[in-house]
Amino acid sequence: MISLLASNGIPCISRTSHSGVHVKMLAAPINPADINMIQGTYALLPDLPAVGGNEGVGQVVEVGSHVTSLKPGDWVVPADAELGTWRTDAVFSEETLVKLPRDIPLLCAATLSVNPCTAYRMLTDFETLGPGDSIIQNAANSGVGQAVIQIAAALGIKTINVIRDRPNLQEVVDRLMSLGAEHVLTEEMLRKPEMKDLFKKVPKPRLALNCVGGKSATEMLRHIQQKGTMVTYGGMAKQPLTVPVSAFIFKDVKLRGFWMTQWKKDQAQNKDRLTGMIRTLCDLVHKGQLTAPACTQVPLKDYRIALEASMKPFVSSKQVLTM
Amino acid sequence: MISLLASNGIPCISRTSHSGVHVKMLAAPINPADINMIQGTYALLPDLPAVGGNEGVGQVVEVGSHVTSLKPGDWVVPADAELGTWRTDAVFSEETLVKLPRDIPLLCAATLSVNPCTAYRMLTDFETLGPGDSIIQNAANSGVGQAVIQIAAALGIKTINVIRDRPNLQEVVDRLMSLGAEHVLTEEMLRKPEMKDLFKKVPKPRLALNCVGGKSATEMLRHIQQKGTMVTYGGMAKQPLTVPVSAFIFKDVKLRGFWMTQWKKDQAQNKDRLTGMIRTLCDLVHKGQLTAPACTQVPLKDYRIALEASMKPFVSSKQVLTM
Repeated sequence: MISLLASNGIPCISRTSHSGVHVKMLAAPINPADINMIQGTYALLPDLPAVGGNEGVGQVVEVGSHVTSLKPGDWVVPADAELGTWRTDAVFSEETLVKLPRDIPLLCAATLSVNPCTAYRMLTDFETLGPGDSIIQNAANSGVGQAVIQIAAALGIKTINVIRDRPNLQEVVDRLMSLGAEHVLTEEMLRKPEMKDLFKKVPKPRLALNCVGGKSATEMLRHIQQKGTMVTYGGMAKQPLTVPVSAFIFKDVKLRGFWMTQWKKDQAQNKDRLTGMIRTLCDLVHKGQLTAPACTQVPLKDYRIALEASMKPFVSSKQVLTM
Repeated sequence: MISLLASNGIPCISRTSHSGVHVKMLAAPINPADINMIQGTYALLPDLPAVGGNEGVGQVVEVGSHVTSLKPGDWVVPADAELGTWRTDAVFSEETLVKLPRDIPLLCAATLSVNPCTAYRMLTDFETLGPGDSIIQNAANSGVGQAVIQIAAALGIKTINVIRDRPNLQEVVDRLMSLGAEHVLTEEMLRKPEMKDLFKKVPKPRLALNCVGGKSATEMLRHIQQKGTMVTYGGMAKQPLTVPVSAFIFKDVKLRGFWMTQWKKDQAQNKDRLTGMIRTLCDLVHKGQLTAPACTQVPLKDYRIALEASMKPFVSSKQVLTM
């Protein structure tokens, strides 16, 4: 079993004496991947016993004698998955941490290193997009989806956002529009012939971001430009992608995948790209162009309540454990 | 309707007076795409009336006064689709033709500009492959498939070739092995756990070439390397591709498409790439590393017999009209 909470014992000085960094965790969200990891259905399964949580922000309490990039008081986020962030204190090695400016809001810091990073990479690594271009995404109300809307808006890229129909639809539409969404529509609307009217107002997307799979992905693919790319980063519908052969041959679409954890592993020897991206995202936060998703703060001791809340359908608020 | 045969009248001198090239066709194959074009199911539908056939070799009879790259006696193949090759004579414009050495076998020349070009591009444009690497392909007995086997063998790349089970299976296996295939297996064998034994002898493929779609494509995808590419260039099973979300996220596979006609259009301003490729392929022919597929020569006047033969299932011999 994965132990959700490590012991609260403060690590002793000797454990931080070389490259170790004693971090006091401040806040850590519960992401869908964390749940899948506990359920044993994720591609990344830590050795047991293990501490849950892959994201969060902490404050450096003390550093080992070989540590050069961090000092007590600094804010840090994980550079890697599997650090185990749902705890009060930990000693991490220096290279597993990235420093963050201390003047960004706590909930922004706690939710910065997975979802906004995923959104940023998908918007920049697959197609060269510029002001006036458009992209389409499903699961637009997810943590990644909201970051995509905001980062794209900051870059002048128009977003076409697909969400599931739901009881409080108008409220969600209004919130996404206030974040900078150009268009918000439901999965049902995506299948209607009226979609052609939408593309009189906005160019056909060169990039589609797919977190759902199944029919939703097939429908998005119908609307992307000739030679466009669809990037799959999630499979919420638990159904495979179905793609007509003609889309590959005659429309020359490219289908790719993205996984932040793998990207971070691939960049392990070149941490500058990660720290550069974190800096760029913090700049957007400073300018008010990137905010945290709607969050519910739950004290660490009430983790059971937070875990249960995180697994309910149509939860628009991210559960964040605070220490 | 598409008229299969143009009139046999020899074009008069005045029609070749500027950039025109009077070509006497020598031989032209019947490819599946030609049939689809006549059936109206192809992505490329010429204005009617039109002459069928998109590939073939002809000999220059006379050139217009502005023609600099060709002279009477030269052998030529189409640089583009839609030229209409099933006829005795035509006046084509200079830029729609590519010169061929006259010392390669007639059937090689007649079948060089679509299938071997498709095979060559797919082997070179998507993954960087070198000696010892492997690729996997289905429809390995097709014209493209046989060219893939030979070009890959010339480059030191091992091919894993998937074909449908059939009455004369051993005969086809023997022929593909004699062309340079490393392994030949049936669609049924591809699904068996024994496949893991194969990959003790040959590395997992970085590239999969898919001309079938449906289950065959899904099975090939299971066997490619992490971060590998599958290129779809045909859909013989008339079923879409079904791809699990995990293949994109955790295996980071890339799905692409290829269409020779589009490639030629995209290179219209840069004919050097096409002529360079034709030269490379002719070098392979000269060295005995690339041969024509099994062909049945049919006189042009018996085109009905050839068309019927080309549409029968499990036809291993390409119908080639000779003029």
